[in-house]
Amino acid sequence: MFNWFGKRRAQVDAPTLKPRSEQTFGGEKIDLSELTPDVVPFLGQVAYFELAVFESLTRAVSEAPNLAAKEGLTSSAGEVLLKHQGVVAELRKLKVDPAEAMEPFAPAIDRFEKLTGGRDWYEMLLGVYLTAGFLDDFFTRMVGGLPKAMAKRLEVLLEPDRAADVIVAALETGMAADPTLASRLALWGRRLVGDTQLVARSALLGSGNQADDEERIEPVFTDLIAAHTRRMDGLGLTA
Amino acid sequence: MFNWFGKRRAQVDAPTLKPRSEQTFGGEKIDLSELTPDVVPFLGQVAYFELAVFESLTRAVSEAPNLAAKEGLTSSAGEVLLKHQGVVAELRKLKVDPAEAMEPFAPAIDRFEKLTGGRDWYEMLLGVYLTAGFLDDFFTRMVGGLPKAMAKRLEVLLEPDRAADVIVAALETGMAADPTLASRLALWGRRLVGDTQLVARSALLGSGNQADDEERIEPVFTDLIAAHTRRMDGLGLTA
Repeated sequence: MFNWFGKRRAQVDAPTLKPRSEQTFGGEKIDLSELTPDVVPFLGQVAYFELAVFESLTRAVSEAPNLAAKEGLTSSAGEVLLKHQGVVAELRKLKVDPAEAMEPFAPAIDRFEKLTGGRDWYEMLLGVYLTAGFLDDFFTRMVGGLPKAMAKRLEVLLEPDRAADVIVAALETGMAADPTLASRLALWGRRLVGDTQLVARSALLGSGNQADDEERIEPVFTDLIAAHTRRMDGLGLTA
Repeated sequence: MFNWFGKRRAQVDAPTLKPRSEQTFGGEKIDLSELTPDVVPFLGQVAYFELAVFESLTRAVSEAPNLAAKEGLTSSAGEVLLKHQGVVAELRKLKVDPAEAMEPFAPAIDRFEKLTGGRDWYEMLLGVYLTAGFLDDFFTRMVGGLPKAMAKRLEVLLEPDRAADVIVAALETGMAADPTLASRLALWGRRLVGDTQLVARSALLGSGNQADDEERIEPVFTDLIAAHTRRMDGLGLTA
């Protein structure tokens, strides 16, 4: 077979950067390939989760305290919408009705969104930022067991924290204007990480032996929590 | 000067389809080039309008009666978001802060969105469909007086009724399930067209002599109302 990349590959002997995911987690990236559940339920769950994040962000758009923040958040909402639409496209390629695939996951994810929705605009924003960051991160570690081409597409599509700079800027503006906000958000961020881990664990349900799984996923959670801590640190909040 | 299109033009002598806009309005398309207001206020108004339509659609997403409708409406919301983002990109190209350009138009458009928001999910959807269709149509007729390249981009960007098929399908499903809905929606559609014309007229404010303008825009409104009537007809509603 003719190898389209043969020549190009041979030329690459300069030192190269590590892929971003490895950089982010410093060292060997632990993945959850062996725990990946069946393709359709996995895609259905991720599609519904991104839809729920999109809805949360659109509420944040509607309730934004000024037009500049509103305008900025539409970009974040647009990025999340692209994630949702990308996963839906994968389902359609498999001739699966997206609504049917998402349906089983709606109640738990709706409950989760309510739980992490916060009491005001800032808590809502921090909730979206931390939970979506955590779970996008988690989902990209589960794609390893999927068909290779699909896994590649999903890994690019679901990259965590895309367009999060707008959210970070809005939170920083709020904390600068109200000195009590930071400590309230720090508490809130600590609470969120617990609930988010429960959702992540439930995503593994049905993928095999629960007791065995626990042992395997522990190091992954250590990584995910480290990333969560970095997000909190970035905002000047103690995790 | 070298004419890039000289050769290609000479080859086109087979009968061609009329451009879509002319087909839609049967006959010579009347435009509002001479009435086009200054570039920045025009873009600011259109950008805010598309943002408001996006927000209305995201409310419709959140309140959708089922997951299939919800999923479908996210596409419509995505299309409208692209319109907003495209206009914002034009403002940024001009080194204009989008929020500042939009600000003056926010109160009137917010009032309009409230007025046309409807009492339930179906009225909300019909409101978005008819008012956005009417005003996108109206705005594309005003681009003629803008710098040529920008006008071209906006005409493509703001094409009315893009992704409206999802909204039409949702309305048809609703009317099939509830025989009283059609007559209520027909009344609602008739009311909307009046309010929408007022907004369109206010978009012409500041563009010159009001009395003169009235005379010139009359035929355009006749066209826009004809398109509105076709949208209503398409739903089986008497306009």
